[in-house]
Amino acid sequence: MTSGLIGVSIPQITGREKVVGRAQYVGDLKVAGMLHGKVLRSPYPHARILHLDTSRSRALRGVKVVVTGDDTPQRRWGLIKKERRILAADKVRFAGEEVAAVAAVDEATALDALELIRVEYDELPAVLVPQLALEPGAPEIHAGTGNLAYEIRVERGDVEAGFNSAAAVYEASYEMSYQYPGYMEPMGTLAVPDGNGRITVWTPTAGVFVARARLAEALDIPISQIRVIQTVTGGGFGGKNSEDANTPIAAFLALKAGRPVRLVNNRLEDFLAAPAGLPARVWLKMGVTRTGEIVAKDSIVVADNGAYTGLAPAMVHVAAMRSDSMHRLKNVRSHGRLAFTNKIPSGAFRGFGNPQMGFPLNSHLTVLAEMIGMDPVDLHLRNAIQSGDTSIHGWQIGSSGLTECLQRARKAIGWTGKYKRQRGDAVRKRGVGIAAGIHVSGNREIQNWDGSTIDIKINEDGGATLITGESDVGQGSSTVLVQICANELGIPIEHINIINPDTDVAPFCYGAIASRVTIIAGNAVVRAARAVREKLLSAAAEKLEASPGDLTIENGLIQVIGSDHGITVAEAARAHIFRAGGEAVSARVTYDPPTVMSDKNNYGNVAPAYSFAAQAVEVEVDTETGQVRLLDSYTADDCGRAINPMAVHGQTNGAVVQGIGWALYENLQFDEGRLVNGNFADYTIPTADSVPRLRSGIVESNDPNGPYGAKGASETAILPPPGAIANAIQDATGVRINSLPITPEKVLAALRAQRTEGKRGA
Amino acid sequence: MTSGLIGVSIPQITGREKVVGRAQYVGDLKVAGMLHGKVLRSPYPHARILHLDTSRSRALRGVKVVVTGDDTPQRRWGLIKKERRILAADKVRFAGEEVAAVAAVDEATALDALELIRVEYDELPAVLVPQLALEPGAPEIHAGTGNLAYEIRVERGDVEAGFNSAAAVYEASYEMSYQYPGYMEPMGTLAVPDGNGRITVWTPTAGVFVARARLAEALDIPISQIRVIQTVTGGGFGGKNSEDANTPIAAFLALKAGRPVRLVNNRLEDFLAAPAGLPARVWLKMGVTRTGEIVAKDSIVVADNGAYTGLAPAMVHVAAMRSDSMHRLKNVRSHGRLAFTNKIPSGAFRGFGNPQMGFPLNSHLTVLAEMIGMDPVDLHLRNAIQSGDTSIHGWQIGSSGLTECLQRARKAIGWTGKYKRQRGDAVRKRGVGIAAGIHVSGNREIQNWDGSTIDIKINEDGGATLITGESDVGQGSSTVLVQICANELGIPIEHINIINPDTDVAPFCYGAIASRVTIIAGNAVVRAARAVREKLLSAAAEKLEASPGDLTIENGLIQVIGSDHGITVAEAARAHIFRAGGEAVSARVTYDPPTVMSDKNNYGNVAPAYSFAAQAVEVEVDTETGQVRLLDSYTADDCGRAINPMAVHGQTNGAVVQGIGWALYENLQFDEGRLVNGNFADYTIPTADSVPRLRSGIVESNDPNGPYGAKGASETAILPPPGAIANAIQDATGVRINSLPITPEKVLAALRAQRTEGKRGA
Repeated sequence: MTSGLIGVSIPQITGREKVVGRAQYVGDLKVAGMLHGKVLRSPYPHARILHLDTSRSRALRGVKVVVTGDDTPQRRWGLIKKERRILAADKVRFAGEEVAAVAAVDEATALDALELIRVEYDELPAVLVPQLALEPGAPEIHAGTGNLAYEIRVERGDVEAGFNSAAAVYEASYEMSYQYPGYMEPMGTLAVPDGNGRITVWTPTAGVFVARARLAEALDIPISQIRVIQTVTGGGFGGKNSEDANTPIAAFLALKAGRPVRLVNNRLEDFLAAPAGLPARVWLKMGVTRTGEIVAKDSIVVADNGAYTGLAPAMVHVAAMRSDSMHRLKNVRSHGRLAFTNKIPSGAFRGFGNPQMGFPLNSHLTVLAEMIGMDPVDLHLRNAIQSGDTSIHGWQIGSSGLTECLQRARKAIGWTGKYKRQRGDAVRKRGVGIAAGIHVSGNREIQNWDGSTIDIKINEDGGATLITGESDVGQGSSTVLVQICANELGIPIEHINIINPDTDVAPFCYGAIASRVTIIAGNAVVRAARAVREKLLSAAAEKLEASPGDLTIENGLIQVIGSDHGITVAEAARAHIFRAGGEAVSARVTYDPPTVMSDKNNYGNVAPAYSFAAQAVEVEVDTETGQVRLLDSYTADDCGRAINPMAVHGQTNGAVVQGIGWALYENLQFDEGRLVNGNFADYTIPTADSVPRLRSGIVESNDPNGPYGAKGASETAILPPPGAIANAIQDATGVRINSLPITPEKVLAALRAQRTEGKRGA
Repeated sequence: MTSGLIGVSIPQITGREKVVGRAQYVGDLKVAGMLHGKVLRSPYPHARILHLDTSRSRALRGVKVVVTGDDTPQRRWGLIKKERRILAADKVRFAGEEVAAVAAVDEATALDALELIRVEYDELPAVLVPQLALEPGAPEIHAGTGNLAYEIRVERGDVEAGFNSAAAVYEASYEMSYQYPGYMEPMGTLAVPDGNGRITVWTPTAGVFVARARLAEALDIPISQIRVIQTVTGGGFGGKNSEDANTPIAAFLALKAGRPVRLVNNRLEDFLAAPAGLPARVWLKMGVTRTGEIVAKDSIVVADNGAYTGLAPAMVHVAAMRSDSMHRLKNVRSHGRLAFTNKIPSGAFRGFGNPQMGFPLNSHLTVLAEMIGMDPVDLHLRNAIQSGDTSIHGWQIGSSGLTECLQRARKAIGWTGKYKRQRGDAVRKRGVGIAAGIHVSGNREIQNWDGSTIDIKINEDGGATLITGESDVGQGSSTVLVQICANELGIPIEHINIINPDTDVAPFCYGAIASRVTIIAGNAVVRAARAVREKLLSAAAEKLEASPGDLTIENGLIQVIGSDHGITVAEAARAHIFRAGGEAVSARVTYDPPTVMSDKNNYGNVAPAYSFAAQAVEVEVDTETGQVRLLDSYTADDCGRAINPMAVHGQTNGAVVQGIGWALYENLQFDEGRLVNGNFADYTIPTADSVPRLRSGIVESNDPNGPYGAKGASETAILPPPGAIANAIQDATGVRINSLPITPEKVLAALRAQRTEGKRGA
């Protein structure tokens, strides 16, 4: 309240240890007696395991444990559906699936041991394309499923009537690729069984409690037998949300060996084992009136689940619905299906299914605008949802900065002088594009709770410890929470320590999902810090013979307002303990937002706030090579209030880069179901020279439910890039690419088709 | 309340890991990049450091850091007085004092590095005897102190009038030796600095918060920069109460190296570095009336502080006063002095100064009883304090089982048929002896707080986590706390996990001192568990559509009383989270006992309860060798209520063995100030064949302030053995030994003197 730490750019509190190389990632950890784990993976996308011989492997000196699917618990695990066992038993369902694991005294021995395992497979026909997987008669990957992992249908208003009232209707299909999470730190686990029957697991997870529950299921032991501690995390982007097999395998090996086991993926293993962002095909049809009102939207999503179900069903749900709340829609219909294939399991990725509709929707809006002769930015603005609105799916928009985002992006890119101006030279053509997105901040869709509990303890020297299970996976949430805490308590940021999430000591929570930490844990920090502050003030008031209301805390000093009579926070903290009936100052407070679970028709205000972003880009297309170069990008991010502007800019720009990667470069490539580009030489992510100096601006719509008005800022900016870039390419060249990534080959092919078309037309 | 787990013998919850060798003591810990520390110690008891050359040591390959006193912070540390620096600077004050320390890649290199350090000393005259140290003109160990580290005078009633009214008055002096803590696990520390400026310290400490505060002082950094985590502890007995130099040296090396450092004492180092139980000389004079009323007690205590002040002042305070509250005394006077000497610093040891008066007092009472022709047991009984009494120093005795303890001990040893019966043969003579003691359970003398805060969290599977900073150093307190928690919650013991004390996450407390954990933390557990229970019942009541008052919890099941309608604790725990405004079930509750700090005249009820014990022993003295053999021992221990009888018996018998050790065997031996028996070959502790099958009985006086009536049971039984054994030797042989340990040489000398006396008399 007093310290003015809100809206101040502060470097991440864990920045120093990372920059100087002192941060201990899971791969850096060593403990006494530690073994090294390695995993044998299936070379076939679909096969029956006929015979598995580990005898030679077991006999190798230094090998302590060799396990196969038959050794693992029968119980199946999964965040949504219970399908997986710790290691494949009987059948393998994707190339890369874990069939055996080894723990040995060192990594070289573990690798040697893998080579001594003999597996006989009976290869089965593989199903690699979702649409084909769903056809009758396709080989079933999981018996009795018809290869349908999930299906959703939503319909509101009168879609047909809407189309009938439209001046322009446009339909098209879009193809979207896999996206590997691409974090710097591959997934890893150090599992340490103790002598009391419990196991402690150190791992870079986005949610220690989710990880614990999943692990209990996989190991078939009680939750309370497991302690999960988050290690310093080198990026997650959804890829560290407990969909991986790494942690269960490491823990299982450790329990079998009765010794600590560390299992860290190398990059190829991580490509094979990390959930990849959801590949999808979307058919979209929309209609607008002459004045630009969107009067109907109809869509069909078919997404690729891969061989096992992680979080992809929830992502299809998001793809089918979430973007509808960005505009004042009245008539929508959506049909989403998720198909099993014999490929790497898909799963959570920043944006969580939302980009899968963001690309089609933003592409469509530019086309429709052109069809009715309207500026696409104006079409967005014409329909943009506003603060106070309730969206078609029941979302109560406490704050919408969408209009301002669009206006600022338009202005920043110089839209008016550039759009439709046919700029560039004969070969290199320039164009601009616009796109926007909406995302949740929090989400009451897992269970009927979306809260966070924050525990603050004050030490005898006036320092504070913030105990939370909410994970900072690199996004900087811990810095924001500490900032809020310092601001409320009136002590310097350096006086606050935030512990690594640890299930044994932190209060239950979900962790870093759904852009929820700032708004939900942030609100809890505000409340917990105020409770702590009250206790400090009451102890100080007694010492100072003043009323608590007359006191202020600033920079660790409690003073009677308007005097220099005061004591330190440390003194107040000690006075609170050392007296009859005293105790150390602490407070544990929960904030559960005023949201509801959506009803059986998927209607309901699921989040306390909704974030918006708009991006305008300028591209240059080399019409001879098909190369697309991004010249400029400006993203306006409505995060409600930027508690730490530096952190928000980091999130905005980081999300934009990942969006650019998906738009232009990234895709897992398979050869008969086998991944062929599982490394950063062949799987290209945007490098510094392929991205212009990104510009971003913060729109502060001041959400009524946000702490100081803040909303989530981690995911919204990943939504616009593919649409904005595709729109800009069309503005530059007249060709529209509906398939990601927009490779030079696709651009060239489209340009060739355009010329043919032009000649035929001529 | 419902589970009936109170009064049930349950093996220690950490028993299994210890028995199977899986417990990780600090010496078992390894972390990545860990260096090994070693310490160079002074060979002189008193010397000026003229020159210290570490250049050759620093140059040795594998040596990372070499530090001397000059490198260490100027700030001095100490629990009571601020005297020590991390390493000696300028002067050394005892042989064994730490003058330099090394951190190297392995222990062998660190040892080699020590040998390369050159130190030139200028030896100073050493003061080795407390009485001489206090004489005018003695060389001063700390300038300006006159070698007096602490002094206390207490006087109540009219001591002279008391003596005047006495029928018998007896005075004598007693000599008591050092006692090394003798734990199985020597002291050690693993200190790990992180990249964010904080340091984490793993160490077997009896109090993590005390250790943290001390370390902050020694390192001269804020408390909040330090995290202390207690490792599995292989015994403490007072020796792990933050008086050691081990932890500060390890932490200082780690900060200097910027790498983890493990420093574990070997046995000799531990003998030199552990605080040893307080050597003291006591002059005692007491008077009794013809009917056995104790009418006056006068005493002078001179104790040996060694070179630096740890907790010995508080121990002299205890020696001077504590035992006075065992009887209904009216006139007492005490003068206690603590002298610096150039020896190993003394410090906390089980009993904490109380045995230093227990031996004289119990010896005296038997002599006085004989002087008035009374049975010594009757003399004890005649004066024994009773429940409801307020003692001479203001202690409110909520419960006294002293009378019952004495009666049971008398009966168990077969006192009536043995005492004064001149049993045995010509050479081997048998006798019995009695002694008793009183001890505090908790102690409000450190600061005006003696509380404990307990935090209980319920997991989604109904398991509970108990978060506390109270240390189990082997005494079994964690088992007792878990038992109480399980009993109150109605869940199985195996469903409860108690975390290792950790300053970052546990609530502030003092730890395992003053026999306080069972009574104070136990009371807090009762209250916290009841708060948790209420939350579980309220969630269950809603689910079961019942009133919380109609519900019971047993074995993890919540049921409507008198029906089989119910849900599991796990279901209730989940229902409490997953609802609007929900949160995980937890409660953090503090218990601060209704005690007061003693006033400036040392008057006040400092503990919520007081424990009693009485022991009767039978010995056989070989008059040819002087060997004393313990034939039988029965100790009655008034612990209020035995929450875990097996644990109480373990504490009683363990304390008795340590008392026997001090009585018959143990002493640090010095040659010109240098320790000569710093190993278990030369420093003899009681072995299995020197101790009879110890018998013990529990007296349950049901204290009104105790959880279920329980009081502390860790220290009382260490008080009687020296007195009981000395009394039994006298009963057997007629000679009285007033000097510990009662070695065969002393017995033989006394028997010779007796014969000479007899001859002279004849």
